[in-house]
Amino acid sequence: MTTVTIWNEYRHEREDDEAAAVYPDGIHETIADALADGQPADSSLEIRTATLDEPDHGLPPAVLEETDVLLWWGHEAHDEVADEVVDRVQERVLEGMGLIVLHSGHFSKPFKRLMGTTCNLQWREDGATERLWVVDPGHPIAEGIDEYIELPETEMYGEPFDVPEPDRLVFTSWFEGGEVFRSGCCYRRGNGRIFYFRPGHETYPIYENEEVRRVLRNAVDWAEPTGGKGGSGRTFGNRERDRD
Amino acid sequence: MTTVTIWNEYRHEREDDEAAAVYPDGIHETIADALADGQPADSSLEIRTATLDEPDHGLPPAVLEETDVLLWWGHEAHDEVADEVVDRVQERVLEGMGLIVLHSGHFSKPFKRLMGTTCNLQWREDGATERLWVVDPGHPIAEGIDEYIELPETEMYGEPFDVPEPDRLVFTSWFEGGEVFRSGCCYRRGNGRIFYFRPGHETYPIYENEEVRRVLRNAVDWAEPTGGKGGSGRTFGNRERDRD
Amino acid sequence: MTTVTIWNEYRHEREDDEAAAVYPDGIHETIADALADGQPADSSLEIRTATLDEPDHGLPPAVLEETDVLLWWGHEAHDEVADEVVDRVQERVLEGMGLIVLHSGHFSKPFKRLMGTTCNLQWREDGATERLWVVDPGHPIAEGIDEYIELPETEMYGEPFDVPEPDRLVFTSWFEGGEVFRSGCCYRRGNGRIFYFRPGHETYPIYENEEVRRVLRNAVDWAEPTGGKGGSGRTFGNRERDRD
Amino acid sequence: MTTVTIWNEYRHEREDDEAAAVYPDGIHETIADALADGQPADSSLEIRTATLDEPDHGLPPAVLEETDVLLWWGHEAHDEVADEVVDRVQERVLEGMGLIVLHSGHFSKPFKRLMGTTCNLQWREDGATERLWVVDPGHPIAEGIDEYIELPETEMYGEPFDVPEPDRLVFTSWFEGGEVFRSGCCYRRGNGRIFYFRPGHETYPIYENEEVRRVLRNAVDWAEPTGGKGGSGRTFGNRERDRD
Repeated sequence: MTTVTIWNEYRHEREDDEAAAVYPDGIHETIADALADGQPADSSLEIRTATLDEPDHGLPPAVLEETDVLLWWGHEAHDEVADEVVDRVQERVLEGMGLIVLHSGHFSKPFKRLMGTTCNLQWREDGATERLWVVDPGHPIAEGIDEYIELPETEMYGEPFDVPEPDRLVFTSWFEGGEVFRSGCCYRRGNGRIFYFRPGHETYPIYENEEVRRVLRNAVDWAEPTGGKGGSGRTFGNRERDRD
Repeated sequence: MTTVTIWNEYRHEREDDEAAAVYPDGIHETIADALADGQPADSSLEIRTATLDEPDHGLPPAVLEETDVLLWWGHEAHDEVADEVVDRVQERVLEGMGLIVLHSGHFSKPFKRLMGTTCNLQWREDGATERLWVVDPGHPIAEGIDEYIELPETEMYGEPFDVPEPDRLVFTSWFEGGEVFRSGCCYRRGNGRIFYFRPGHETYPIYENEEVRRVLRNAVDWAEPTGGKGGSGRTFGNRERDRD
Repeated sequence: MTTVTIWNEYRHEREDDEAAAVYPDGIHETIADALADGQPADSSLEIRTATLDEPDHGLPPAVLEETDVLLWWGHEAHDEVADEVVDRVQERVLEGMGLIVLHSGHFSKPFKRLMGTTCNLQWREDGATERLWVVDPGHPIAEGIDEYIELPETEMYGEPFDVPEPDRLVFTSWFEGGEVFRSGCCYRRGNGRIFYFRPGHETYPIYENEEVRRVLRNAVDWAEPTGGKGGSGRTFGNRERDRD
Repeated sequence: MTTVTIWNEYRHEREDDEAAAVYPDGIHETIADALADGQPADSSLEIRTATLDEPDHGLPPAVLEETDVLLWWGHEAHDEVADEVVDRVQERVLEGMGLIVLHSGHFSKPFKRLMGTTCNLQWREDGATERLWVVDPGHPIAEGIDEYIELPETEMYGEPFDVPEPDRLVFTSWFEGGEVFRSGCCYRRGNGRIFYFRPGHETYPIYENEEVRRVLRNAVDWAEPTGGKGGSGRTFGNRERDRD
């Protein structure tokens, strides 16, 4: 049984008509649909959601403890996320929980904490075309994707992207307006796998795109912890001498 | 169905009494046993072997075409491996075939071809103790392994090891005589995964060690091609313009 | 003109007789000597020191602004370092300032902040022998160092070391008691270079060792910012469209 | 004294009117000018050229022995480069010689040998605009370059680019026709630094571009061997035991 928790700030969709029109039940529900798509009847995937305004932001210790892969969408309320929840997310990633950070989540506290950088970038809201090129065709996150994914209307994100050099770069975006962006970045931190994936915006129906949905499913598979929820052993501290 | 081909030079075991005593049926058969260990009755793993003195070294195009993961053990006859077989192994790795290179295979033609370096190192045959420390406890190749694997009698391999910086370093060896070695190194080349694993020697029964056998099984799982035998799409060459 | 600031917690040497005997003027002064060793009369290196109990820990904004490379030694009082100083150190590293973290500084706030992990490890104070093997002989930080540096009495640090996979691994330590450790690790974060170097302990005269001193000088050279103190351009934020 | 050798196939410029008009003295002479630009009167840079049709392709052992950094431009005659020259280039890079591979040199024998992959890519000769974005603003190869370099007329190279994941990615190209490309890639192999830089074509005056010329100079500085021509020590082979 793999437990996936989709965390969403869930403010735009309740406060802004345009966002509500695109994601009437919230971005988290659309992502939940995306992950459930094409699952067999006996799927071992259990999909949950959590949002900012729930107690503990929907992420009390017990929920994080059970979560194998956490997805994170946030934008306008990053600062409202409590530091103790960020602490727990970081700790769980280091233990082995997968973390998938989406779009404007580049500025979320958990991502910045785990990267150690500002995670800043350039941006422009012009609804122009983006092409996400697969630069690593053998990577499991790109499985089933053709040469590129084309999204007709997106917000632009441009380089420089202030993140550590990714362990693997899976996608690089081309933007109609003249920019490029490393839009699919893999990291390992502690025992956990982290994937940053650029697509997604509160007023464009990007999580309805079939190829984007495929990437989300692939990323969940890739991010599952090795050795199950407990992860593999990480022993630290004072060590007795066992050789003379 | 995953097809694994174990390639062995198979000379020491036929020519040298000491090696024959340890590996009477050849190193390849002991590795085949290691991979079959603990497989369920309905295992989808098909295990084959191939040796240097067979026609085409046991690796004609059809065999490589069907192989998902190739293991390679060689030592005294690296130069007898035909370049066209090396060409095919390289091509198949770039298409997605996994390659696991063992011990003295560091000097094999396929490994040197894929690394682009001499793959040289320091060594000493003194039958002293080695400890392979897990430096990446979250890596699937280390799953089920405790802090380290201890081998009571080994040939020493020491740094510097002239290989490209590994993508992931899973094991680092400690040797009784005072040396260290990066003994579990992961690479991606094209669509293929490559794992170099140091343990194994023709006159020490290292492939009987339960933890070494576990690592071999883990490595086969890890090295399987994404998207099946064909791998994911790799389109090259002249490209028509599709945007104006 | 390159400005180097050596930061030291400077508590052990004032409170503990054993440490005071080894480093009577403080670890920072011994490191300052090490950096000045062999500098030409017209050296462009300006060496400063700063300690925890000075105002702003000796690192007010103006000092950090002028610093090209910061060295950091701390141990028992990591928690007393003010978060706003950590913020400034992080910011300056991302702008281009080099950072060299020494020994028990693995647990310092600036290093943990920049790594995004716990930076935990195993340890044992047994005064046994360590050998730091050069695993990357072409790296500028290893220039002038033979195959390894041997230190007769050290505190052991053992794997797993909970840091991101280093961009370049320069040294790996062998310990008499049976452990290994990645003891010279290079990172880039933002425009800044970071080097973690394991040797150094308050009661062993490790910063008197000529080869350790050579590595410290090499590391300062390596960590200097590209393009001078200001670093290269990092432009973020809303971007006008300049193509149609 | 740093010795730079610029190797050029030098066929297009002698056989093709269009190429001759752009590079009348050969691409190598234009690159030699670029490297000499802005050098002080007492520069320690010695610039040499070598071409395919000279004896030993202009690269006899003595020349390679003295070369600190080798630049390589080739296109239509890769196959005419003798394997023994490729062997020597590889050997020298592993010893510490820098190698800068330009444009169509992606398919040259030395680059393919050192990468271990096909180095294949997609391409289109349409003379459209390229922008090389700096994705690593702190890298010395990007020093003095603004956000991007714009080239009004280029041949397109598109992903996937079949090379190992670069150690550092400095530039990523955007092409008017809708493609992206990792166009400035850093590698270390043995003691040597390798930089692949995409710009350059026999019929576009790209090596006259001031920013491209700046990158070439930066890359030569970056690629110089650590520790001078001899590089640092690389000791391999049988090792006596020195600890009991």
